[in-house]
Amino acid sequence: MLVDGRPVRGVVAGPDGESVLIIDQTLLPHRFATRRLVSLDDAFDAIAQMWVRGAPLIGATAAYGLALAMRRDASNAALEAAVLRLPKARPTAVNLAWAVDRMAALLRPLPPSERARAALAGANEIADEDVAINAAIGDHGLTIIRDIASRKKPGEPVNILTHCNAGWLATVDWGTATAPIYKAQAAGIAVHVFVDETRPRNQGAFLTAWELGQQGVPHTVIVDNAGGHLMRLGMVDMVIVGTDRVAANGDVCNKIGTYLKALAARDNNVPFYVATPSPSIDFALADGGDIPIEFRGQEEVTHIAGVASDGRIETIRLTPGGSPALNPGFDVTPARLVTGLITERGIVAAESGAMAALFGR
Amino acid sequence: MLVDGRPVRGVVAGPDGESVLIIDQTLLPHRFATRRLVSLDDAFDAIAQMWVRGAPLIGATAAYGLALAMRRDASNAALEAAVLRLPKARPTAVNLAWAVDRMAALLRPLPPSERARAALAGANEIADEDVAINAAIGDHGLTIIRDIASRKKPGEPVNILTHCNAGWLATVDWGTATAPIYKAQAAGIAVHVFVDETRPRNQGAFLTAWELGQQGVPHTVIVDNAGGHLMRLGMVDMVIVGTDRVAANGDVCNKIGTYLKALAARDNNVPFYVATPSPSIDFALADGGDIPIEFRGQEEVTHIAGVASDGRIETIRLTPGGSPALNPGFDVTPARLVTGLITERGIVAAESGAMAALFGR
Repeated sequence: MLVDGRPVRGVVAGPDGESVLIIDQTLLPHRFATRRLVSLDDAFDAIAQMWVRGAPLIGATAAYGLALAMRRDASNAALEAAVLRLPKARPTAVNLAWAVDRMAALLRPLPPSERARAALAGANEIADEDVAINAAIGDHGLTIIRDIASRKKPGEPVNILTHCNAGWLATVDWGTATAPIYKAQAAGIAVHVFVDETRPRNQGAFLTAWELGQQGVPHTVIVDNAGGHLMRLGMVDMVIVGTDRVAANGDVCNKIGTYLKALAARDNNVPFYVATPSPSIDFALADGGDIPIEFRGQEEVTHIAGVASDGRIETIRLTPGGSPALNPGFDVTPARLVTGLITERGIVAAESGAMAALFGR
Repeated sequence: MLVDGRPVRGVVAGPDGESVLIIDQTLLPHRFATRRLVSLDDAFDAIAQMWVRGAPLIGATAAYGLALAMRRDASNAALEAAVLRLPKARPTAVNLAWAVDRMAALLRPLPPSERARAALAGANEIADEDVAINAAIGDHGLTIIRDIASRKKPGEPVNILTHCNAGWLATVDWGTATAPIYKAQAAGIAVHVFVDETRPRNQGAFLTAWELGQQGVPHTVIVDNAGGHLMRLGMVDMVIVGTDRVAANGDVCNKIGTYLKALAARDNNVPFYVATPSPSIDFALADGGDIPIEFRGQEEVTHIAGVASDGRIETIRLTPGGSPALNPGFDVTPARLVTGLITERGIVAAESGAMAALFGR
């Protein structure tokens, strides 16, 4: 998608063949800066420090991280060390383990001398597949938006609420939840997006609002508390969110607060869709109760960064000094609250039989 | 309640008889500062600028505002001008109109020469009644907490989630939602409070956490997104919130986001109580659909203030420059989601018949 009018990807192999370029998303929306990764350590940090975030982008970055590792040392020992280490950068995202497993299966049979080249090709393939998957999610989701638009008065936009950032910044390109929105925009359908701020890391206000703005999609930032009220007022036509992991029964793990929006959508008969590439579906996981949920550092709740009046990026404390905080990173939305999963193969009920049938499990 | 170990009220007549003292709550938790109001304009500003906030405290402050007005000019024209003006400071809180109406009914029959003294006495009476009402709410709510505590293992605290600030800072003393908590603490029952941050104005993180800390009540700040997940994990025993206005059918208007917590409480069989003094019950309002909801300025969403690393209070921007925001201040929680109303007369179902019977309507 576009940054300052130029096409950009979330992760891409550097033109020198020795590095990988990412966007340091911790600086957005206040600064746009890329980082050059040259080692496994760099890739680990990029994931753990959340310079890159979003399940698909984490997976692709991990794959490139293995490619960087193989450039330095392609021995069996180095390969296995990298395969053990990378998944520890973020415990919840299933794509991370998926990408590492896929790369390991590709590289283990090869002689070390072939691994660096094969790893780069494998990482490029994962990245290109992600782009194709998200474009397909966009095409399928577009049918839902088109259907809602057909019932609106002429000129009235389709109002879509989204939580966190499941945009192109969370993927290699297109995004998951945003792909249908960008496809609708390209198809000339009027859309307007309510962007949940998404505390504590504010990925909605920081990232989704920024990328929608760069793309010229009309949008409005709201606090996470507001969505239920707007649904009661009839101001929301549909919800689309992304996911970090979908269990075999259709339970959806996503950014903390997603569950509350799903409850409100159900209470107001607003369709609640989850855009999920198939690598985010964990068929080995019976239900969402078994998904490990990160409790992250309390300073994400007690402090926040933004732009001061003089243009500097300043971090401020929001809570009284003596008050502790608790910071669960994700929640699980039960399948019963999900209208449907938008996958690259089509829209499917959040139900084990339908999901298994669509993906031939 | 206590500030630095000394008892303080949310609003109190100054010892000079010519002024009214309030706390500038916009500076909390970072600074504790009182303000001296000497005129109707001061009282209007105190309410409109949210130096004082919370329905009961707004009502008492408005009553004192009329007393200040009568000191300067006790003519019929001045009285009617003040009665017309004060309710415009905040449109949603019913206590504001209630207190002004009560003061007007007291003052209109009196000759102007008696109005200043009578107005101060009337305002003091409203303030003292609020203290008594909240203490009674505390005693009734205590029975619920005691009941939950009796089913816990020894030493396990009762975990109470609250939203926004319905603490003593929102009233003259005790608070509404916090009164049962302070009463439980006084009764030696172990309690722990999950404090919703409460975006956009962060009254939970700024005010509730501060006053609980001053009172020595164990508490943990969470983002507004987290409560549903904690309920799913069984970490919340009950929810207590305050209210700005309860309709005759039990629909509850309260800070934006309350509705989402009520949905989550219902989905997890967590009792959801609303602490409400009877002046906050609007028997003339059939249901919550008719409650006017403020849309407040978007800068409350796009900007936030806190303490910078050097100790200065700094306001920072959180959103991309080109992204607009929408800021509904309140929402309506349907009566069907409310376990009960904790009033000064006892606990009552959020249902028109039961409410009318308790209050003799």
